Amino acid sequence: MNVLVWNENRHEKKNPVVSEIYPKGIHGAIANFLQEEHVTVNTATLDEDEHGLTEELLNKTDVLIWWGHIAHDEVQDEIVERVHKRVLDGMGLIVLHSGHFSKIFKKLMGTTCDLKWREADEKERLWVVDPSHPITEGLGEYIELEKEEMYGEHFDIPSPDELVFLSWFEGGEVFRSGAAYQRGKGKVFYFRPGHETYPTYYNQDIQRVIKNAVRWVNNANTPTPVYGNAKPLEAISKK
Amino acid sequence: MNVLVWNENRHEKKNPVVSEIYPKGIHGAIANFLQEEHVTVNTATLDEDEHGLTEELLNKTDVLIWWGHIAHDEVQDEIVERVHKRVLDGMGLIVLHSGHFSKIFKKLMGTTCDLKWREADEKERLWVVDPSHPITEGLGEYIELEKEEMYGEHFDIPSPDELVFLSWFEGGEVFRSGAAYQRGKGKVFYFRPGHETYPTYYNQDIQRVIKNAVRWVNNANTPTPVYGNAKPLEAISKK
Amino acid sequence: MNVLVWNENRHEKKNPVVSEIYPKGIHGAIANFLQEEHVTVNTATLDEDEHGLTEELLNKTDVLIWWGHIAHDEVQDEIVERVHKRVLDGMGLIVLHSGHFSKIFKKLMGTTCDLKWREADEKERLWVVDPSHPITEGLGEYIELEKEEMYGEHFDIPSPDELVFLSWFEGGEVFRSGAAYQRGKGKVFYFRPGHETYPTYYNQDIQRVIKNAVRWVNNANTPTPVYGNAKPLEAISKK
Amino acid sequence: MNVLVWNENRHEKKNPVVSEIYPKGIHGAIANFLQEEHVTVNTATLDEDEHGLTEELLNKTDVLIWWGHIAHDEVQDEIVERVHKRVLDGMGLIVLHSGHFSKIFKKLMGTTCDLKWREADEKERLWVVDPSHPITEGLGEYIELEKEEMYGEHFDIPSPDELVFLSWFEGGEVFRSGAAYQRGKGKVFYFRPGHETYPTYYNQDIQRVIKNAVRWVNNANTPTPVYGNAKPLEAISKK
Repeated sequence: MNVLVWNENRHEKKNPVVSEIYPKGIHGAIANFLQEEHVTVNTATLDEDEHGLTEELLNKTDVLIWWGHIAHDEVQDEIVERVHKRVLDGMGLIVLHSGHFSKIFKKLMGTTCDLKWREADEKERLWVVDPSHPITEGLGEYIELEKEEMYGEHFDIPSPDELVFLSWFEGGEVFRSGAAYQRGKGKVFYFRPGHETYPTYYNQDIQRVIKNAVRWVNNANTPTPVYGNAKPLEAISKK
Repeated sequence: MNVLVWNENRHEKKNPVVSEIYPKGIHGAIANFLQEEHVTVNTATLDEDEHGLTEELLNKTDVLIWWGHIAHDEVQDEIVERVHKRVLDGMGLIVLHSGHFSKIFKKLMGTTCDLKWREADEKERLWVVDPSHPITEGLGEYIELEKEEMYGEHFDIPSPDELVFLSWFEGGEVFRSGAAYQRGKGKVFYFRPGHETYPTYYNQDIQRVIKNAVRWVNNANTPTPVYGNAKPLEAISKK
Repeated sequence: MNVLVWNENRHEKKNPVVSEIYPKGIHGAIANFLQEEHVTVNTATLDEDEHGLTEELLNKTDVLIWWGHIAHDEVQDEIVERVHKRVLDGMGLIVLHSGHFSKIFKKLMGTTCDLKWREADEKERLWVVDPSHPITEGLGEYIELEKEEMYGEHFDIPSPDELVFLSWFEGGEVFRSGAAYQRGKGKVFYFRPGHETYPTYYNQDIQRVIKNAVRWVNNANTPTPVYGNAKPLEAISKK
Repeated sequence: MNVLVWNENRHEKKNPVVSEIYPKGIHGAIANFLQEEHVTVNTATLDEDEHGLTEELLNKTDVLIWWGHIAHDEVQDEIVERVHKRVLDGMGLIVLHSGHFSKIFKKLMGTTCDLKWREADEKERLWVVDPSHPITEGLGEYIELEKEEMYGEHFDIPSPDELVFLSWFEGGEVFRSGAAYQRGKGKVFYFRPGHETYPTYYNQDIQRVIKNAVRWVNNANTPTPVYGNAKPLEAISKK
């Protein structure tokens, strides 16, 4: 399985708080723990040519992980189209945290993907609400993060096909933090945590979820629909 | 309630078969039977200024009905954005037949909305699969259309929030013919039948469904979410 | 529309705290505010003959509201079957608070309907997560209850067809507090708040939700499926 | 992984047509092709002690496959409770064909699970409607069965969490033929084909679906919720 971790990689260059937590970038940290899963992991970032998302690389990518925040607008529409097409063709997509506002996520959802937010070093507790879901494998009843950014409802997304996690925040809000969708032959998983100023991607449970999600969104040679004009499979009576 | 029936209105101008069936246009036929419902009905067409979809008119529209086919590309992106915003703000949207490929429907779904199709004067039977759904009020177990265009699976849409009708086609295909979605504060209903060369919109059951759908997608003063930076509702501990 | 409010009515007889809050019983309080809706409201309680749920009364009931807690086991299985059949035949059902453990709710859900709970006078905040849903008409972004019993996830129910409210609790839990289902021709809405020792059913927003839910679960003359052996509608080829 | 194939095994004893097609019983045929999957397969039948479903055997079973038809009533309620509990605790369940009327399926669904049916040697075509679903791995766009019993809508089940297949029948009906559900920690998949007088379980595509479903319903060490009275995780203010 080929996993590609895409990161905007801008906070890391500008903000020493972030680069201290993630010296190899958020993409580096995620790629690092995914390597324990016996999958091939590559990384790509915004400032590379074609944002590092060439046709060639995408075509052999099974699962794409997306982290972006302050530069969503700089992602070229043509590349967004390319990723969109690949998702519908079966490439799994995991959208993390502030990626909720990425062009690719908004395009796949059809809504604004807007939400409430607050940076206040507050506690987040993610409750498992679907204990049958493979993405929860190996977890306890909840994941606790001592400090995170708050995201609060209403989260303007379509009703998830599968709702896996609900977050409780110290400041009084709740959030649908783990939301799974089917789009074409592809599967999409949105996972809330991961603000750049916290070491969230070093948390073992968070890593567990992302590892599980990689396996869950990975498509398994499912059928490719044929579209367009179709000959009848049965005789049609003359009337 | 203000209902706006939008029609591309091109087949009617070019194809005498169509203009004979729908002398006042498909929009005229739909507007005509909706007037029985004690709602205010307006119509708009592609070739009007701003396609007849001015900010002013959309802002007072509760439910928009959309029929388009051969000129989806001529609908200006700016107008699509305008309609999209109104749907998320609570305007109901009913997309009919070949409107599956309209810009607005594809934008709301996030998928290609592609399908199989065939024009062969074949029989369609729409089975009710959710007999609790208000859109089925007053119907029998199925609706039969002697001749219709075939649309067949796979239909590349997100899994419907509510699946109301399934079609059987003489030539051997099936189709998810009545599919309901929630997007923001708005409700969307896709309804398959209505090829321009058949008198489908004179069928009493088809009219019943569209009348029911108008009531179902009409928003009832639900809450308007507030997005963006939010002050805490509860005290956050210092750590 | 005929609404029937059913209450176990045991706490009211035993606990002066409850009878002081609800001198006419919880059923009396609910019936009282529903009368503002121009519907016919009846009440029934556990200790009546057939628990007040005669065939005759159920057959003319459009919407049944259910509150029970300490005597679920005393509800006769035969009466549960009767209510179950009526729900599948189109009678709307609203299950309140501790009714999550009622025989009828468990039978309709197919799961244990178990949950976490705590009586600690804590704050509950119910967030609207589907602002397109008619059950949220007239509400703000959330409902706040100063003191309520806590119900926490995991709530062992099937994934709701429509998830309307999510609760935040002061003690750190979340809960799917407004959950809508389709069963046969019937609609079911579970609404969490309403512990007997708090005046929750006098809260205007809570009343608004129950009033909205009564309209939402009320079936509108939808089709009655025919089951069993069926003659073909089309000719079947001899092979 | 331990798979247990349960079969009523009555048609095989009474009807030579069936015993000729399935000389080792339907359970034998299913067990046979599942052995290709490198899983441990056991079988059990109605007339064994405890229907072959002892606590000990069920506790070590990961996936249970269920085929029944004419003797649903003979399955003891106590054993149904035992299977139900195991499903909620995470044992996967695959219900085949006439198992739609089994006690365990009706209990998990909460509805009558009734449908239309006809034995007329007619053609069935199962269309894939979710080409992202792992259960469709290795299939084409549809599966064709030359002769099968017809099952037609309305199928009185809750709206599937995931709808995978839709059937077209020669006689004019459609059916939701592959329906997936989550119940507690368990996953349930209903798959329509498999009437006893046809050699359906020798069809390679049908075998593929059942093999895929075995993997899909198999639970992967997901969290076990704790229910009941719960201490607060956060301080609750005194009011």
